[in-house]
Amino acid sequence: MDKVRVIEVKQSVFADNNAEADRIRRELKAQKTFLVNLMSSPGAGKTTTLARTIRDLRDELAIGVMEADIDSTVDAEAISAAGARAIQIHTGGMCHLDAGMTEQGLRELGAENFDLVVLENVGNLVCPAEFDTGASKNVAILSVPEGHDKPLKYPLMFEVCHALIINKTDVLPYFDFDMDKVVQYAHMRNPSLVVFPVSAKTGEGFPAWENWLREQTAAWNG
Amino acid sequence: MDKVRVIEVKQSVFADNNAEADRIRRELKAQKTFLVNLMSSPGAGKTTTLARTIRDLRDELAIGVMEADIDSTVDAEAISAAGARAIQIHTGGMCHLDAGMTEQGLRELGAENFDLVVLENVGNLVCPAEFDTGASKNVAILSVPEGHDKPLKYPLMFEVCHALIINKTDVLPYFDFDMDKVVQYAHMRNPSLVVFPVSAKTGEGFPAWENWLREQTAAWNG
Repeated sequence: MDKVRVIEVKQSVFADNNAEADRIRRELKAQKTFLVNLMSSPGAGKTTTLARTIRDLRDELAIGVMEADIDSTVDAEAISAAGARAIQIHTGGMCHLDAGMTEQGLRELGAENFDLVVLENVGNLVCPAEFDTGASKNVAILSVPEGHDKPLKYPLMFEVCHALIINKTDVLPYFDFDMDKVVQYAHMRNPSLVVFPVSAKTGEGFPAWENWLREQTAAWNG
Repeated sequence: MDKVRVIEVKQSVFADNNAEADRIRRELKAQKTFLVNLMSSPGAGKTTTLARTIRDLRDELAIGVMEADIDSTVDAEAISAAGARAIQIHTGGMCHLDAGMTEQGLRELGAENFDLVVLENVGNLVCPAEFDTGASKNVAILSVPEGHDKPLKYPLMFEVCHALIINKTDVLPYFDFDMDKVVQYAHMRNPSLVVFPVSAKTGEGFPAWENWLREQTAAWNG
């Protein structure tokens, strides 16, 4: 393989993708739709976190969801059960979403009908961080079992995000996870990152996360 | 972004990469070095599993390790502490290793001096599955907190692997994880996949995994 060649292609993709992402953001701003790009490793709890958030906020916000997955529909089914309009985007093996794919999803969903749209990206802590989807804000989920060293090892994800949810706090007693260290490491990457320790299983920590989401949505749409 | 263009580049990469990988495999076979490509999500326990395996087998096998990481050296330090020669491969943002990058690592490590070399790939359940590294066998680690649905959502990883380690069995009581289902889903993707439930923390299940590794190494090198 020619490593340099791959990097060149990425750069040319970035140039187009960033312009497309900016255009999407302008359209979403004009139509008063706040788009969150939700990213994490596989199994960190994106869908469970989202389902609880929807149940808590669905009476005050019109929420739509785009579930990106390589090859299944289990997540969209879970989100529909929580009471939000959801569509599934199959990436056909692609390891991330770009602005063009996001825009196809927004059209299919009818994004203009929602105050808040959440894009659940492919479970991957590396590639999705490289592509601007046109989202208003990027949010990452890191779960306790993954370990507190992840901001050291996957720097870009923490650099590009505005908020970091640390999920599965209910199992903190069973893992060697240092909450102070993970916050310290995350802030080394990105000093303005807002951190929300939560348990999507028990609901612990959700009010603070949901307040942030409510305020950000109001600020974007207001 | 131009989605088609990316896919075309991948295909041309594949053609070169597969030939390179086959050449690496022939050389490793001739020099009696068994190369394992170890893959998983971030935080599934690749390094901890590997450190315990090294401690258990270092008296009977000469073991070398190549730690791939985007931007840190914490894993190579942990492996050196376990008693194996380890080098760190920085991928500079790349989300996977290919055959060419693997070969650079093998040369730097001096692979011909080892019975067993383990390549710890970048933590990513998507992209590494697409690139043949030249390894003799592929091994994936899935951890209990990630959930039993992962073979449904990340099919290629389970298709390309020869063995699947299911790590963190010590926390099974705290998660909704169905061991029968994960084995069933994994075998839907790959009927010949050998599955080893283990706990890298307690050592549970390690004898079966280590027997497999010992037998595979002997068969390749014999």
